[in-house]
Amino acid sequence: MTLNTMDIKTYLTKKKDIVDKSLEKLVPPSKAFPPSVHEAIRYSLFAGGKRVRPILAIAAAEALDAGTADLLPIAGSLELIHTYSLIHDDLPAMDDDDFRRGRATCHKVYGEAIAILAGDGLLNMAFEVLSDSRRLKTIPAKRLVAIIKEISTASGVYGMVGGQVVDIESEGKEIDFPTLEYIHTHKTGAMIRASVRIGALYAKAGKKQFAALTHYGEMVGLAFQIADDILDITGSRKETGKDEGSDLKKGKQTFPSFYGLDESRRRAVEVSDRAVLALKDFGRKADPLRALAKYIVNRSS
Amino acid sequence: MTLNTMDIKTYLTKKKDIVDKSLEKLVPPSKAFPPSVHEAIRYSLFAGGKRVRPILAIAAAEALDAGTADLLPIAGSLELIHTYSLIHDDLPAMDDDDFRRGRATCHKVYGEAIAILAGDGLLNMAFEVLSDSRRLKTIPAKRLVAIIKEISTASGVYGMVGGQVVDIESEGKEIDFPTLEYIHTHKTGAMIRASVRIGALYAKAGKKQFAALTHYGEMVGLAFQIADDILDITGSRKETGKDEGSDLKKGKQTFPSFYGLDESRRRAVEVSDRAVLALKDFGRKADPLRALAKYIVNRSS
Repeated sequence: MTLNTMDIKTYLTKKKDIVDKSLEKLVPPSKAFPPSVHEAIRYSLFAGGKRVRPILAIAAAEALDAGTADLLPIAGSLELIHTYSLIHDDLPAMDDDDFRRGRATCHKVYGEAIAILAGDGLLNMAFEVLSDSRRLKTIPAKRLVAIIKEISTASGVYGMVGGQVVDIESEGKEIDFPTLEYIHTHKTGAMIRASVRIGALYAKAGKKQFAALTHYGEMVGLAFQIADDILDITGSRKETGKDEGSDLKKGKQTFPSFYGLDESRRRAVEVSDRAVLALKDFGRKADPLRALAKYIVNRSS
Repeated sequence: MTLNTMDIKTYLTKKKDIVDKSLEKLVPPSKAFPPSVHEAIRYSLFAGGKRVRPILAIAAAEALDAGTADLLPIAGSLELIHTYSLIHDDLPAMDDDDFRRGRATCHKVYGEAIAILAGDGLLNMAFEVLSDSRRLKTIPAKRLVAIIKEISTASGVYGMVGGQVVDIESEGKEIDFPTLEYIHTHKTGAMIRASVRIGALYAKAGKKQFAALTHYGEMVGLAFQIADDILDITGSRKETGKDEGSDLKKGKQTFPSFYGLDESRRRAVEVSDRAVLALKDFGRKADPLRALAKYIVNRSS
């Protein structure tokens, strides 16, 4: 039933290309605002991200048989927010990372002040894009407001920001498993879940479909995080773009530090299977979502 | 025609109280998200701000004879954004301020990481509040989307963030007057203008009324900034909550450094008069707006 590995790689390349083109339109090279922050934003936004979140939104809308041309700027706003979070996470006061995706981090190139402001600018820009009157040509205003609520909640203190707070505060401390789960579900999980739900909202999902896609999003988010924790240990810097074992070095506890590598791998597959199972009432149009769930635990970067 | 000084002070106290109560509802003391960032957010949000932006929004809506109960959360979101900007501006990598309103700044109390995340959290929260489905009980979704667009644009790279970038980059440099104007109109002006326009949008202003209130907002923003620059030189720490001449110490050029104190005072009054003139077609209901324009140049903190 699902796309094979070759197919999903082609699918991802195609969709990444479409998302990148849409992002180029949202933040074109011409400098309409101060050059330094403009450059810093483009530097981080076009640093070779996989565009997982926008692609999940697109694939969810496609699973419901919706056209996605007008979803692109909305999907792009997920990447603007993701990029803001990476820039702020990398800051010296936060995770203090010098490299990201094999390149110097934003603050290493542009300085801390511009990096903070580039992050702030990106977060604001996401909401500028979402509330642009052009969106209303194809999306009813009420649904657009629901989409904005979904994204801002996933991104804020009840979501990603909350997860990052607990992550930072747990560094070098013994934490229990529920705390690790809190960090996972909030820091990465919330935005991944929201990405899928945005696609569902856009495509006018019915109640049952929305619940199924929500469950899919939660499982994919969890699988993504377990796989990330495993990659931090097993992946080479060439593949992941960061130092091996960087979580360990920072005294961060991860899924494998609770369950070991083998059990973590087993769980990642189990969770990914559950994501696929959530789509049992969907037809062939959901194949990319199914393939994505599998790809996420098998990827090497 | 205008309220006298006594009246405007009573008006401001009353409105500040209403705004504070609304903010208490938006961010209640109970801890629904990680305690550290929750405390940091409340510490900075309830640090004795004058609530100028929310009050401008309320006064603009009142000038158009609109009830303002349902405007309060929207007006509150302006203060959430204002507070986020103060927390980030004060960071060591930015203006590096230890005191604000006579109290230690957020990062001095909670550390840099939590201060960055408190700012991020507040910015997200503004959009969570704006897109909350309860807003739609009294505001048509299309108008709410326009309000979100107005606020996000004023707050982002084309507005406040852009102004802050140029401000930071101009420190210790000779700048020309157009650059100072750019900083003023973007760093403070954009959000003050947006505050007035939000009130106008909420109250269904006609085209002409909207243009008049926009002009009022621009003049008030400018008057506010000139007055701020003057206060930085003449105000005592007791009144302003920060060290005297702190702009000068940072090598920041201000209105008085181009025009001297006397000419700056003359211009502040002139600009404030122009704000009042913009309201010539409004009746007595616009008296608080008129008084606010005068108060802003006469205040001592």
